[in-house]
Amino acid sequence: MKAALSHFTHTDDCSTEQLHGLLQLAQRVAADPSAYYQKLSGQLLINLFYEASTRTRVSFEVAAKRLGMHVVNIGTAGSSIEKGETLHDTFFTLQAMQPDFVVVRHPVEGTARDLVSLAEPGTHIINAGDGTAAHPTQALLDALTLQQHFGDLSGLTIVMAGDIRHSRVARSSLALLRRLGVKEIRLAAPADFLPGEQTVAHDRVFTEFDQALEGANVIMMLRIQKERISGLNIPDAGDYHRDWGLTPQRLALAAPECRVLHPGPINRGVEIASAVADGPQSLIRLQVRNGLYTRMALLLALSGGNHAAM
Amino acid sequence: MKAALSHFTHTDDCSTEQLHGLLQLAQRVAADPSAYYQKLSGQLLINLFYEASTRTRVSFEVAAKRLGMHVVNIGTAGSSIEKGETLHDTFFTLQAMQPDFVVVRHPVEGTARDLVSLAEPGTHIINAGDGTAAHPTQALLDALTLQQHFGDLSGLTIVMAGDIRHSRVARSSLALLRRLGVKEIRLAAPADFLPGEQTVAHDRVFTEFDQALEGANVIMMLRIQKERISGLNIPDAGDYHRDWGLTPQRLALAAPECRVLHPGPINRGVEIASAVADGPQSLIRLQVRNGLYTRMALLLALSGGNHAAM
Amino acid sequence: MKAALSHFTHTDDCSTEQLHGLLQLAQRVAADPSAYYQKLSGQLLINLFYEASTRTRVSFEVAAKRLGMHVVNIGTAGSSIEKGETLHDTFFTLQAMQPDFVVVRHPVEGTARDLVSLAEPGTHIINAGDGTAAHPTQALLDALTLQQHFGDLSGLTIVMAGDIRHSRVARSSLALLRRLGVKEIRLAAPADFLPGEQTVAHDRVFTEFDQALEGANVIMMLRIQKERISGLNIPDAGDYHRDWGLTPQRLALAAPECRVLHPGPINRGVEIASAVADGPQSLIRLQVRNGLYTRMALLLALSGGNHAAM
Repeated sequence: MKAALSHFTHTDDCSTEQLHGLLQLAQRVAADPSAYYQKLSGQLLINLFYEASTRTRVSFEVAAKRLGMHVVNIGTAGSSIEKGETLHDTFFTLQAMQPDFVVVRHPVEGTARDLVSLAEPGTHIINAGDGTAAHPTQALLDALTLQQHFGDLSGLTIVMAGDIRHSRVARSSLALLRRLGVKEIRLAAPADFLPGEQTVAHDRVFTEFDQALEGANVIMMLRIQKERISGLNIPDAGDYHRDWGLTPQRLALAAPECRVLHPGPINRGVEIASAVADGPQSLIRLQVRNGLYTRMALLLALSGGNHAAM
Repeated sequence: MKAALSHFTHTDDCSTEQLHGLLQLAQRVAADPSAYYQKLSGQLLINLFYEASTRTRVSFEVAAKRLGMHVVNIGTAGSSIEKGETLHDTFFTLQAMQPDFVVVRHPVEGTARDLVSLAEPGTHIINAGDGTAAHPTQALLDALTLQQHFGDLSGLTIVMAGDIRHSRVARSSLALLRRLGVKEIRLAAPADFLPGEQTVAHDRVFTEFDQALEGANVIMMLRIQKERISGLNIPDAGDYHRDWGLTPQRLALAAPECRVLHPGPINRGVEIASAVADGPQSLIRLQVRNGLYTRMALLLALSGGNHAAM
Repeated sequence: MKAALSHFTHTDDCSTEQLHGLLQLAQRVAADPSAYYQKLSGQLLINLFYEASTRTRVSFEVAAKRLGMHVVNIGTAGSSIEKGETLHDTFFTLQAMQPDFVVVRHPVEGTARDLVSLAEPGTHIINAGDGTAAHPTQALLDALTLQQHFGDLSGLTIVMAGDIRHSRVARSSLALLRRLGVKEIRLAAPADFLPGEQTVAHDRVFTEFDQALEGANVIMMLRIQKERISGLNIPDAGDYHRDWGLTPQRLALAAPECRVLHPGPINRGVEIASAVADGPQSLIRLQVRNGLYTRMALLLALSGGNHAAM
């Protein structure tokens, strides 16, 4: 008997068995999504987004609607947040609607776990990104994408490059990939964009992009998180592209079968050249599609029941 | 035979019999909400909100979706309102969609009644707050909450405290509680926040909070409606809390079984202390939940049919 | 055998036979809309609006929901567009959700056709207005409205008046009415508002409104598109109304049975007097209602199947 998963705020909350279960369910959903349509008919999901989002918000919204759920979207514009209400009080208001799921994105680290402590039984909290701390559904979809392409991950050398310091994707995805047993994780970033703490899983650090690429099977690119940078100069786009942009020339320095990921939104001509983003070694569009399947799987798994069969 | 209720713009529009019918239906919905799910399947509700809202907009949206309705949300951002269209013309556009319900919140008093005069048969108008005039669904949910807790209301002494002058909740809720026969209504507010006209039902007025509290069974707190105040100084939050904040010390001056209501959003440490808002005498969370049931009941009642059984 | 219609970006994309088929289906939907409810149950429509809209966005949303579809709305506020993502990349993100329809409004001419070149099979692109170029569903609903009122269009003399230069409605509607065989198209506008190119179908041009009206069976009014005007003075509203406002006096110069159209939103007292907009010769409200039926018909037609029966 396994404990059921009630919330999903951080990949660390899950046992390795639960993570494998989630990924296996996501594989099944990806193989035949329509087999799961309407499985959660009549349930209610609230998207509570305190930061801008297209792909994550829409992905949860479509996932939930495909599963037959009611969806209510709340952004910061036009809401009581403008009247000075605290997050806790907004949450209590939403909790009173007896939602099955509250999906939260918030600039403050720890927000989703905080809401877990307030949630009533029957309401599942999902973290859609909190500060620079975690974005665990992105980690799941990245892992799913790599499993689909490579099968076994244990032989992979992965380079994560760019603004790692301000990236919640970096923290979540690398922690998960480490647990899934990848061979080597390399961080490649200018000094200002290296993480200052021990929070990002890695084996080696490079401050020259080219030097990090030898033998790399996967390059995970990150955009500059301008909205989270303070007290640092934002580099000139042209300079940054020259030193830290993933171009076809740079990609050729990696292993021949190397694949490229990016959590999006991408800034073409800055951290990535269009020829790479749209090229044959890019898995970026597959990532977005897997984002939908991963979120469908997560909703099914948290709601329990036979269809989840974890 | 009673006349059916077609619109709900003001509690004064309803006979006392209709109000009791609405409250009884709301009690039944609260007791078993899922018995009413999908009862209005395929109907269309348009939320037309010209002012910020979370709890009211979401409450109507969830109520409608639980009942099986289609919901379309319209705010002032990103709409034709920006192109200089009048409210009447926006309404005619929406009327052409043949909605079953239009729920309107607007800064101008009388807007909902105005739309009633334009509405085609089959379209029900609901007032979700117009200026400082009325917020009748809040009045219903307040009454429902007090009925659930106290049963008979006729023995109650109720204190409403805070920015009564700019509050549509004060006007609607006190008018309804008066009709439901409460024993005594006291207003307690600093001079600037007392209503200047005869529009707010009451028996006694106090300009010192402590003096108003003796024997009070219910205290209804109001936040300072900063967005509607002009030509007045907004008090310092600390000063206001000292003189007009509901603290545990103040609450102890009321009757022992006294209960606290607040329409939300609450400003903690200003008009109410957290220890009161979250304490055992608070009914605030119950109010929010009842908001959902009240709105489900109202939609059922306006749409007629056996399930409404008023 | 006719080729099926896959996208709807411009009325020129359609054969005359296809246009007649669309209009006939729209007539059938208008006659009995509920016969088509739920016909596209479970399909997904994404409203991607980069410009403000109420009537068009809501019209597509209601049309889709009446047909049983899931609807996801995306505006520019609160989306990844704020993070510098290109339109193409936003579209690829949305394409990954496997929508059946993407309805796009965008300030740049050619956007909808551009997305057609990127769309996967099974995703239908609909132009809800691109720059000053086209607004083809408005053209359809205008044609439907005139067919309902006049039956055969071949004898009609039509005057389009106002800010023709900045109007995508002018381009689309007049092109379609020309193909449907109207007798004469007259443009009436101050010199600054006449189209500078040969893109707007017409027979005669007038720079005095009164002179254009003799024998007119239809007057199509346009508002001043302030949001698209640069390098021109926007006329004073009073002066403009005197010279270019459609008043009852001016309307009396046209044929006795003359009917008035306006795509909305209308600016009362500027390009049109309220007595005309709300008067017996106005078809403006019928246009809005037909907008809903036209879009239901278009969604049915693009999705194929027997119910479309084109």
